This record gives sequence, C-alpha cells and structure tokens, in this order.
Amino acid sequence: MTEAATRRRGRGGGGAARRAERTAIRIECARFIERNIPDLELLSEEALQIIEHNAETVLEEIGVAFVENPAALERWKAAGADVSGERVRIPRGLARKLCATAPGMFTQHARNPDRDVEIGGRSLVLAPVYGPPFVRGADGGRRYATIEDFRNFVKLGYMSKWLHHSGGTVCEPTDVAVNKRHLDMLHAHMTLSDKPFMGSVTEPSRARDSVDMCEILFGGLNGRTVMTSLININSPLTFDSTMMGALEIYAAANQACIISPFIVGGAMAPVSVAGTLTQVLAEVLAGVAYSQLIRAGAPVIMGAFVTSIDMNSGAPTFGTPEAAQITYGAGQLARRLGLPYRSAGAFNGSKLPDAQAAYESANSLNTGLLSGVNFMLHACGWLEGGLVSSYEKFVMDADQLGVLHRLAEGVKIDEEAQALDAIREVGPGGHYLGCGHTQRNFKGAFWRSDLLDYKPFETWEEEGARDTQALASVRVRKLLADYQAPAMDPAIREALDAFVAERKAAETDAFL
Amino acid sequence: MTEAATRRRGRGGGGAARRAERTAIRIECARFIERNIPDLELLSEEALQIIEHNAETVLEEIGVAFVENPAALERWKAAGADVSGERVRIPRGLARKLCATAPGMFTQHARNPDRDVEIGGRSLVLAPVYGPPFVRGADGGRRYATIEDFRNFVKLGYMSKWLHHSGGTVCEPTDVAVNKRHLDMLHAHMTLSDKPFMGSVTEPSRARDSVDMCEILFGGLNGRTVMTSLININSPLTFDSTMMGALEIYAAANQACIISPFIVGGAMAPVSVAGTLTQVLAEVLAGVAYSQLIRAGAPVIMGAFVTSIDMNSGAPTFGTPEAAQITYGAGQLARRLGLPYRSAGAFNGSKLPDAQAAYESANSLNTGLLSGVNFMLHACGWLEGGLVSSYEKFVMDADQLGVLHRLAEGVKIDEEAQALDAIREVGPGGHYLGCGHTQRNFKGAFWRSDLLDYKPFETWEEEGARDTQALASVRVRKLLADYQAPAMDPAIREALDAFVAERKAAETDAFL
Repeated sequence: MTEAATRRRGRGGGGAARRAERTAIRIECARFIERNIPDLELLSEEALQIIEHNAETVLEEIGVAFVENPAALERWKAAGADVSGERVRIPRGLARKLCATAPGMFTQHARNPDRDVEIGGRSLVLAPVYGPPFVRGADGGRRYATIEDFRNFVKLGYMSKWLHHSGGTVCEPTDVAVNKRHLDMLHAHMTLSDKPFMGSVTEPSRARDSVDMCEILFGGLNGRTVMTSLININSPLTFDSTMMGALEIYAAANQACIISPFIVGGAMAPVSVAGTLTQVLAEVLAGVAYSQLIRAGAPVIMGAFVTSIDMNSGAPTFGTPEAAQITYGAGQLARRLGLPYRSAGAFNGSKLPDAQAAYESANSLNTGLLSGVNFMLHACGWLEGGLVSSYEKFVMDADQLGVLHRLAEGVKIDEEAQALDAIREVGPGGHYLGCGHTQRNFKGAFWRSDLLDYKPFETWEEEGARDTQALASVRVRKLLADYQAPAMDPAIREALDAFVAERKAAETDAFL
Repeated sequence: MTEAATRRRGRGGGGAARRAERTAIRIECARFIERNIPDLELLSEEALQIIEHNAETVLEEIGVAFVENPAALERWKAAGADVSGERVRIPRGLARKLCATAPGMFTQHARNPDRDVEIGGRSLVLAPVYGPPFVRGADGGRRYATIEDFRNFVKLGYMSKWLHHSGGTVCEPTDVAVNKRHLDMLHAHMTLSDKPFMGSVTEPSRARDSVDMCEILFGGLNGRTVMTSLININSPLTFDSTMMGALEIYAAANQACIISPFIVGGAMAPVSVAGTLTQVLAEVLAGVAYSQLIRAGAPVIMGAFVTSIDMNSGAPTFGTPEAAQITYGAGQLARRLGLPYRSAGAFNGSKLPDAQAAYESANSLNTGLLSGVNFMLHACGWLEGGLVSSYEKFVMDADQLGVLHRLAEGVKIDEEAQALDAIREVGPGGHYLGCGHTQRNFKGAFWRSDLLDYKPFETWEEEGARDTQALASVRVRKLLADYQAPAMDPAIREALDAFVAERKAAETDAFL
C-alpha cells in the first residue's frame, strides 16, 4: 500500500564494496512521493494574473541589483536588459522567456541509484533541516553544534524511512574552521549516507570543491546532476556575488540550484500576501533567468522561504496562515512558470519540541503537500525559528512525513477497495474485524507511526507516562546505536579522504 | 483583517438585564468562518459516482436496521421501502429523493443574536470537545469529570474568541445522576454562555426536556432552530431506538440533528477508504431520509466521525492520513447531496497535551477546513482518543482555531494588497519595516497567537523555559479568573432554575 520498499544499501563499486554489502543490514527507505491527489488552488486566476503582471512591472521599472558582479551585468546587457550601475531592469517578458529553457523536472542522482530522486512535476522530495548553529538534545539542552552533531544528523537522515534526501548543512559544525567545514560536511554526506545531498554555497571556491568531490564520488559526472544546492536571494531584489558565484559554478556544471527569496514578511517584503508574492515572483524570475544565461537548460527550482513576523517582538513566526497563503500562491505561480517548486518544512518558532513546535510544523507540512511543493527542505529537525537542529524533533517530524506519503497516494477505487462484499458479509450490527476483506487488507490498510503512543492508558502509565519528546529521545538513541554506514568502494573513500586532507592543508583556519 | 469583532454580552430581556449588561465586560468573539477559499476535491468524479452507486446498492440489497422502533418501520413502509422484520431495504434513489427536502443551510439561533450561526454553504462553525468521561488538568492529572469541570469548560468556551458554539457534553459530569445530568448541562450552557449549544440525545425524554428548556430560554421557539444535537448511527447500518427517539423529537420541533456514522475503521466499516465512504453515505442517506419522514424540511447535518485503527493494539488512531482521505471524500459527497457537513476536530490519541496531540490535532483541523466541514465538533479540548477533556489542550486548540479563520479569508488582491508602491519605495536592498504601506497595514497583517511563545530565547529562558502546556495552564487559570457570566433576564433564569428543580425532583437518581 505504501511506496516504501526495502532497498539494498550501496550499489557497490568493486569487489571490496560487494563484500562489504553482503554483511550490511538493510535499511528501509521510501521512494520519493508521487502525488496522486490534486493541489489546492488557493488564489483565483485573476489574482495570479495581476501578480504576474506586477512582477514584470517590478522587473521593468524597479529592477534588481546584481552586486559586485561585473560579469553578471555584462551577461544581462547582452541578453537585452537595461543595466545602470548595478541595477538591472528587465524588459517585460524577457525574464520569463529566458526561464523557458529551465527543465520542468530533473533527476538528482544519488550514489545508490535506488535513491535517485525526480524533482518537479507531481513529485515531492523530502530533505532535513538546513543551517542551524545550535543543536538541542534531551540529554544536553541547547548548545553550539559540532561536526559530531553534523554526522549524527546525517546518520539519522540515512536511517529515516520517509526522508529521501540527506540535505546540506544539517547543522553548522562550529568547531571546524569556516573555510574548511564544507569539506567535512560533504565528506559526511558522501560516506555516512547514500542518499542525494546538497553542495556548499558559502563561497564560489567551496562550490568548486563540491563539484570536484562529486567527480570523485561518482567517478566522473558526465553531465549528471548530483547536487541540489540552496541559493538564497538577498531580498528585496538583491543578488550578491557570493551566492551568484556559487550559482554560476553549479549551473555551468549542470548542477541544480534552488533559487530562493529569503523573506521575513514585513521586513524583506511588503506586509501583504499579494505584495510578497509579487516580489517573490520577480526575484525568482530574475534569478532563474540568470541561471539560464550561465547555461541554458541548467536545472533549477523556484524557491520561496517566507515567514510572517510578530509585530510585537519583531520575531519571525512560523506555521502561520499568511505563510500558508504565500506557500499556496507561490506553488501556483511555479506551476504556471513550469518550474519545480521548493517551499514549506517543519517550521516552528518554539524553543522546545513541544505542542507549539508540532502545531506549527504540522500546519506547514500539510501546506507543503497540498501546495504542490516538489522539494521540501527543513522537512524534519527544525526548531526555534531555524536557530536549532533538534535531535528529538528530527525523528518526530521524520515520522510524520509518513502521513504525507500515504495522503499523497490518493484513494483506491478498484473492486477490492470498494469492499461491497465485505459490507454484504457483515451486514447491519455486525463487525468487520474478522471478515475476509479485513483479513486480506488490514496489514497495509492504515499508516502506522513508528514513534507515537497508541497504547492503552494503563500500559502507557506503567511504562513511565512518557510524552512525545521522551519517546523521541529513545528513538534517537536506538537509531544512532543501530546505524551502520552504507557500503562504499574503498578506493573512492581513499580518494575522498585525500582530497579533503589536501584542501584543508592548503588553507589557514578561518573562523569568520 | 479578521472576522473578529467585539460584541456585546447578552441581548437583554428587560430592565434588570439591561442593568446587568452595563456592568459586564466585553468578550471578543469571532463571527463563524465564511470560507473565501476553495475546497480540496480529493476524489475524482468517477470515484464519487462509484461510491454513490454502491451506497444505493447497499440500501437496496442489504438495507439498514431500525431496532425496536415499530413506528419507524411503519413510516418507511408508507414511504415505499421494503420492510422485513427490522430490516429496511430502500429502493435505489428513494433515500436521496427524501433527503432533498432537507435545507442546504440553516440558522441556529443563540440567545445573544450576535452569536447566531449559519450552518451550511461556505460556513464553518467551531464547537468544543464532546463526550469524555475524564478530565485532565496540569494541576490534577487525569480524573473523572464532574459538573464543576463541565461548568469550567463552558466558561472557557464562552471566553474563547475563535469558538462559535458552546457545544454539548463538554465532559460527562459523572458526579450527577445519569437521568438528571442533562438538566444541569443544559442549564450551564444556557446561563454561563450566550453562544449556541446542543441538546441531550441520551433518551427521548431528555430531548423533550431540552426542547422545553429552550422554550423557556427563548421565550417560545416559534419554529426557530436553537439546538444542533448529535445523533450517532450505530455503525454498521443500525439505527437504535434511543438515538432515533431523540431525533424524532428534535426533527418534529424543527431542531437540527447531526446524523453521524460513528466508525472506527476496520471494526465498524471496511478497512478501505472507498468502502468506508460507501457505508457512511448509505447510513447518512437512510438517517437523513428518516428525519425528513418525521418532518420534511427539518434541518440536518451529514456527519462523518471516522478514525483509523492500530491493527497491532486495536486502539483507534487519530490525525492519520486515512481519516483525512475519508474526511475529504465525505465532504465531497455531502456537497453533492446538498447537505451541511460535520467532520474533523482536534482529534488525537495522545495521553498528554504534547507534540503527538498537536501533530495529530493540526492534521485533522487543517483537513477539516479544506474538506468543507460546516460544523466541527471537538474543535478544541479533545485528548486521549476522546476519553479525556483537557483544560490545557482546550485553550491550545482554541488558539489554533485562529489560524483556520485567517486562512479561510483567502488572499486580498486590491491595490493596497498588491503593494506595488511599497516595492517601489523600498527598492533593492532596502527594508519594509518603516515604509508607509507597512505603517498603514502592519496591525492586521499577520495573525498572532494569544498563547504560543514568540519571545527571544534569553527572555523565554529567564521566564522559566516554559513549554506549551505550562503556558496553557497559565491561560486556563486567567480565563477562569476573568470569567463573568453574560447578562440574563432574571425572570428567565428563575424559570430555568424552577424547571430543573422540578424535573430533578420527579426522578430517582440513576447511575446507569
């Protein structure tokens, strides 16, 4: 009934890999979601047309800034834009025309081909939290993240059945120098997991390292897309040279970028939903068009990271209705543009993995599914407005992702699903527990949490009256204890180790 | 921006009432939700047609049982059904034809006319938890509910901005005799709140008492609908004489009934979504048709209370994807039948108001909004699979209902909402915090929780690092401390008191 299937670990790359594989345990991993249900079309056709018209007005009259990037300005000039200083004004229709060469769907390859993902169309690929400098665990409270935490989160991601993607900066390893940590992070994703992952974007040279390491891992890329990386736009309407430098390297290498406005509503965009959507679309049109100027056909994703703001405290707020409205609307705009769409996640502003965290996360996860998101970053583990990667919340959210899988399957209507014979057999006043239809179908009939409590009150009380966080703590410990690395060709492992060692030796530690 | 408005407490019924009113504080209460967004049409037209066809097959070939109710059998015979023993087989199309006299929308009047609700069409009316024998509070753990708890929950409902309805059995007052407690419950709803409420259904005589007390409260009903009461069907396909007896009294008095299959999937219905929907539709068609045989035009609501089951433990499970699929599908069937729809709620199986409770509740609340539910019972306070009314969860859920209000408003697209001038004013690299558009619009721009934590980490830690449950506990105490009863004409109050005293005196205590 579910898309889940037990898959072999590692694809093997030689005799040693095959030997390693034989001894490895099997890890269950679901295939990425292929929606068999409709999207919720929240905004009317008229509203969408107005927003599209206004976004073109923004590009034409206000324009966007490409900062400290003379080559980008030259490219825009050559493409027909009106460039004045660092301001790029794009004639009505030009950006959309340039976007047309971006593919509507692409494959991101994983080193284990069973874990390749399709991004776009009706698919939904789930990836973990990205970016927090802190971690929180039941056994240690809140503290700065380390590379050991990073590796633990990669392991948890690898062990999570409903997670299709290993993600990127699952937390910031603050104990490793800024100019070296991307090497350790990539090394962890490549060796501790066999799911697809993201590349570094914090410097163009680190994007280069990411591509080089992938050349080693995949034994040459040959045009294959093996990374999906996060290129944030400096909203409003500004494209800085660091992010654009990374995008240029990735696009040229046919690696995918999420081109994503980063908006706290009321600060980086107007306080209205329609105004925010206008700006989001203008920014994405400019960013995606630019990616196609680098390499027509380069895979990209339209991103929308949007939160509302608490006007009392200035704090960003999550899982709110305005964020949902923008997520639905941006999904409609992405489909009309023919681009894969990234938004939503297990967003919340809570300090703890408590009810607030869960309400807000569930609001956003459900919105993500129904708004047609194709790539959902932050699908598990996010806490405290993105400041914290939480061990317990990681496994709590990852479990809830199973709900999205089942819901997306839609409703079967074949004769067995119609169950008329069962209704006939049981009749008024009977019960279905023992009937033939139930016997044949009960095993896959209902999605079941691997974490939440379904026990009778008395049993639950005897076992210590544990709340969700306590149950999650147990699961975190078990998953990390059970973890075994996926098999890897020792020659590739050695080459990766050597690359990291060499690149680290070439740099002096920097912590800013 | 929101539908909320400060409303006067009490409508006044005389000089004393008007004097009481002048001293009363104002309580904020939102108007019922009028959706300005589309429903999610989960099932295809083909699937819906198959289910509708199969439901008629069930009614025609298998039929339904009307137990210990000879008058009902006579009514069915006269209407053209094939009656054999207690089994009623309904020719294809007859039930649907009978349902056609039921109104697609009706008004339930409250004693405060500002709190009248429209049930049907694009509306959504939110009512609290119904039925638990236990309560849980941060200060007392889990224990049997009392009439004092009952009154507290009515007070909390009255104080809750996003709750439109006072509900019915907000908990079972187990310290009052079974044959008398309906009098105390009705008295509490009538005197401690001025929101609309539900009548008793546990005995036809108690439904009669409910109507009689409403005659007093409203100074004569004159055909007005002033109660919406819950008539559960004994699934599969059985209509018992207690529930039908109550329905007969309510329908004859033009009082609304929710005719609601009560299904734990796999036990009271097939383990498949399509099979369950078939049975739900057959049961509702028979029940609604019967209500129209009692009184053509009597207001009714199509109900669907459906949970999945944990096939390991046999426990019902909540907030699951199968329950969501059924909720979406039943909403589509209700709209095709032209009936108001009741389903969803803050359902969960958790023992505590923790993350599990919140994930599962949020899943179901969001489904309720997007599936076109018109009357949502259990919208707040439900815990532990309906065994427990939780004080903390009541205010937690009631707060989240604000999210549904805002989301349902849809997206404004007027010139001010388009905010082009703001985007022009701020331009690339600026910020919106001080711009004119933000100044004009920030106050209503973003929905804001009255409960959840939006504070900086350091402030939150200094204030005791409280989780959601702890914050909710504080709010419960504050709301109960601030509570003041809405004004009421003393003559009506005296008449109600006298009615309750007289009816209680006429009965011997029964506890079964």
